[in-house]
Amino acid sequence: MKNEKKVVIATHGHLADGFVSALKIIVGELPNLKSVCCYTEAEFDLDKTIIEIMENHDFDNEDLVICTDMMGGSVNNGFVKYLGKYPFQLITNTNLAFLVDLLLTPGGADCDVLNTKAKDELFGVKYVNNLVGDYDNDLDDL
Amino acid sequence: MKNEKKVVIATHGHLADGFVSALKIIVGELPNLKSVCCYTEAEFDLDKTIIEIMENHDFDNEDLVICTDMMGGSVNNGFVKYLGKYPFQLITNTNLAFLVDLLLTPGGADCDVLNTKAKDELFGVKYVNNLVGDYDNDLDDL
Repeated sequence: MKNEKKVVIATHGHLADGFVSALKIIVGELPNLKSVCCYTEAEFDLDKTIIEIMENHDFDNEDLVICTDMMGGSVNNGFVKYLGKYPFQLITNTNLAFLVDLLLTPGGADCDVLNTKAKDELFGVKYVNNLVGDYDNDLDDL
Repeated sequence: MKNEKKVVIATHGHLADGFVSALKIIVGELPNLKSVCCYTEAEFDLDKTIIEIMENHDFDNEDLVICTDMMGGSVNNGFVKYLGKYPFQLITNTNLAFLVDLLLTPGGADCDVLNTKAKDELFGVKYVNNLVGDYDNDLDDL
């Protein structure tokens, strides 16, 4: 694992910029964060965009974590094609809770770190009514 | 469960509009979808915004699903306070995969539907390098 990491959020439409906007409010400006908003311009070329990110990244000194929007989506599929060609890490079904945690964790991000984080139930989609119900029941038991 | 549902995405910053932008590309325009971008204006008032959503919703004819950005975040906490007061459904740690599925599922969205969807591993954060590794190993076994 490297001592530093760069995080690139890549999504359909302006969702990547939306994540950056929310992150600015919660954790402030982050120099190691970049957004790629795909298909927002007619001349957008996903392969060209991916190769540009990879060729400009300093893999010797920084881990590179690409966070895409959706498993099976065209943005994520585009990056999957390059997994054997460049040593980057690929996360999908990204949400804000995961990004906040990833960006506030100091240091790089290797397979062990990302495997643990991706499996952490904290970051799963939550049906809050049920959780609050459980909490109320716990209180009733006291 | 009602025959119809309305989905409101409520987030820190412009993330909610970002989700709508990505959804437009993937599933097209959706009349039953609304975004609320919190803290983007100095005079933003979360309680006032929530009450306005609730008071204007036709609970007799449509389920109301609020999808927020992050468990423990101030937007989600704001809605939690109103769970006993209005019969809405609250989802958090929202990601694009979950939203696409929710919006493409016909009909309303009651506790059973949302409980099942929130527990579905399909929508969890995924570390793709590992999944592709598993896939390669499966192929090796053939």
